Amino acid sequence: MHFYSENLKAFVRDVLIKEGLSTENASIVAESLVTANLRGVDSHGVTRLPIYVKRLNSGAVTPNPQVQIVQENDSTLLIDGDGGMGQIVGTKAIEMGAKKAKEHGGVYIGIKNSTHFGTGSFFVQQAINEDLIAFAKSNAPSTMAPWGGVDPYFGTNPYAFGVPAERNKSIIFDMATSVVARGKIISAEQAGEKIPEGWAIDKQGRPTTNAKDALEGTVLPFAGPKGYAISLMIDVMSGALTGAGFGAHVNNIYGDFDKPQNVGHFFQLIDVNSFMPAEQFKSRVDQMIDEIKKSPKAEGVEEIFLPGEIEFNNHNHRSKYGINLGREVFDSLKREGEKAEIEIENYMH
Amino acid sequence: MHFYSENLKAFVRDVLIKEGLSTENASIVAESLVTANLRGVDSHGVTRLPIYVKRLNSGAVTPNPQVQIVQENDSTLLIDGDGGMGQIVGTKAIEMGAKKAKEHGGVYIGIKNSTHFGTGSFFVQQAINEDLIAFAKSNAPSTMAPWGGVDPYFGTNPYAFGVPAERNKSIIFDMATSVVARGKIISAEQAGEKIPEGWAIDKQGRPTTNAKDALEGTVLPFAGPKGYAISLMIDVMSGALTGAGFGAHVNNIYGDFDKPQNVGHFFQLIDVNSFMPAEQFKSRVDQMIDEIKKSPKAEGVEEIFLPGEIEFNNHNHRSKYGINLGREVFDSLKREGEKAEIEIENYMH
Repeated sequence: MHFYSENLKAFVRDVLIKEGLSTENASIVAESLVTANLRGVDSHGVTRLPIYVKRLNSGAVTPNPQVQIVQENDSTLLIDGDGGMGQIVGTKAIEMGAKKAKEHGGVYIGIKNSTHFGTGSFFVQQAINEDLIAFAKSNAPSTMAPWGGVDPYFGTNPYAFGVPAERNKSIIFDMATSVVARGKIISAEQAGEKIPEGWAIDKQGRPTTNAKDALEGTVLPFAGPKGYAISLMIDVMSGALTGAGFGAHVNNIYGDFDKPQNVGHFFQLIDVNSFMPAEQFKSRVDQMIDEIKKSPKAEGVEEIFLPGEIEFNNHNHRSKYGINLGREVFDSLKREGEKAEIEIENYMH
Repeated sequence: MHFYSENLKAFVRDVLIKEGLSTENASIVAESLVTANLRGVDSHGVTRLPIYVKRLNSGAVTPNPQVQIVQENDSTLLIDGDGGMGQIVGTKAIEMGAKKAKEHGGVYIGIKNSTHFGTGSFFVQQAINEDLIAFAKSNAPSTMAPWGGVDPYFGTNPYAFGVPAERNKSIIFDMATSVVARGKIISAEQAGEKIPEGWAIDKQGRPTTNAKDALEGTVLPFAGPKGYAISLMIDVMSGALTGAGFGAHVNNIYGDFDKPQNVGHFFQLIDVNSFMPAEQFKSRVDQMIDEIKKSPKAEGVEEIFLPGEIEFNNHNHRSKYGINLGREVFDSLKREGEKAEIEIENYMH
């Protein structure tokens, strides 16, 4: 089912307005979801709308949060997200933080009392537009065991960063700290396929290629103990330091409908002008990008990509030609539209 | 060959004093190297002394650098290392940065014109002692190709972080962004052994298990494209942003004796008191550590470790029982001693 991105954004926005979000807030969430689809990261795109609506309906999410600074210093902000959607809370945090970074050179932003924030790249992109280097991290509900363990403790805690360039596309990288999204294991189980070694362990902590056993066990961190350490660090910064939940104390977006998730985020913004003039910095980044792109290629490789470059290419392509949604996702959106008395077909021109 | 750590430090210090370092500077480098041995990270321990001395003799390293702030803002420091040894430059940077972090809540520290800094954990430990969360990153001479390429561009750019705890040992993590140290491939080649798949590619960019072909090729980043992205990010922060060399423009510690390495580092310090009282934060970290340590273990696992915990255990053990150096390392130190008219045997009680 084919949509142009602006129309798909309008649909998501209109559904969320019916759920009580202000036009501004609904537009932020719509922008985040559809941008993920544009970048080819469909797992974080409009497929999430039904669960977001369900959480809004349950009362566990504040539709129009009062996002407030609860503690600050020249280089730091601690922000309370008032239980709002992470996209809204994070966007306000970037606004507040960018101002501070430009005044003082950089800022560390801790955010508590938030909810699933979609993709980290969404916030990083906002900061890059102002010549800031940005990092966005978040904790998430438990799905990974500590290295050597079997019970889920850490989330697939995402890590994103962005670096502005001038002639070239900016560098935007966004990853989960798990080897693979749990959703891919679910797909394998539904298709009756085996999963590759190294994706998951069963409930006894043994490596498994059986998707069903994997779903009863936990997904593994990327890069073994190194990924475990990075996931832990993200939880320390996003959870322990901010006052949000951490470890197994972050509530599940797909359950726990009686209470807020209390997710925490940690953002870092750096004004490059406090190190060298932005033009000079971006020219150095352009030189790095050029050198990498011109680097000799390994056998069978057609092009060397910068981190996030494939997603930029997807974004350009889908902005022009539109986004195709699978039947299942389309049907779920159509149902959300019907509940809100909005006909999705009106957005499909 | 057996040494107690304080004696081994004294030997390294005395050799470096003969090379023209002040007692204070020589002690910093000795502390860094021997601490690596104590932690069990022998690859970054006293085995490095001969190459350090060789670089000092070549004139490419400033023995007693004038480490200076060249640009600053409330949240940022740009520091010129004056071509000094990274341990000395980095230690002064932590001193300057800790003061600023306590005043303003946090600081981003860029360092240019430095040299190989040993281990990142050395700096992180200094910061933890003052209730700061710390990150230490550095670029390094080219040994890894961009993902899909064959020519070395990035270094094995290290990434370290530290988090203070109260009842438990602090969390200190320190990793290279390569799968494995190049030294391990050299050892395999010398022993006529194959290397595991995934460690390296040959000069055509093909995966190889032949150690000789691997040495003519390049080591791979940890976690494939994710490690490539993280290594690139470290180079952007340490090199492109600071004015140090980046990519293939960082000079080799084992060659390029006619010029400084121009390595760059990037440190981040965060005063936890700007987010919550330090006691409260450390108690939350203790809770996280306790929950992880008590977590059910996978089949065959005897204990779940926190990042860096094994190195702490090594440190405790070797502090008490001493450090054993292999014959080859001992002989190389003995030769350095002889050149400096210092008898290593006098330090072996």
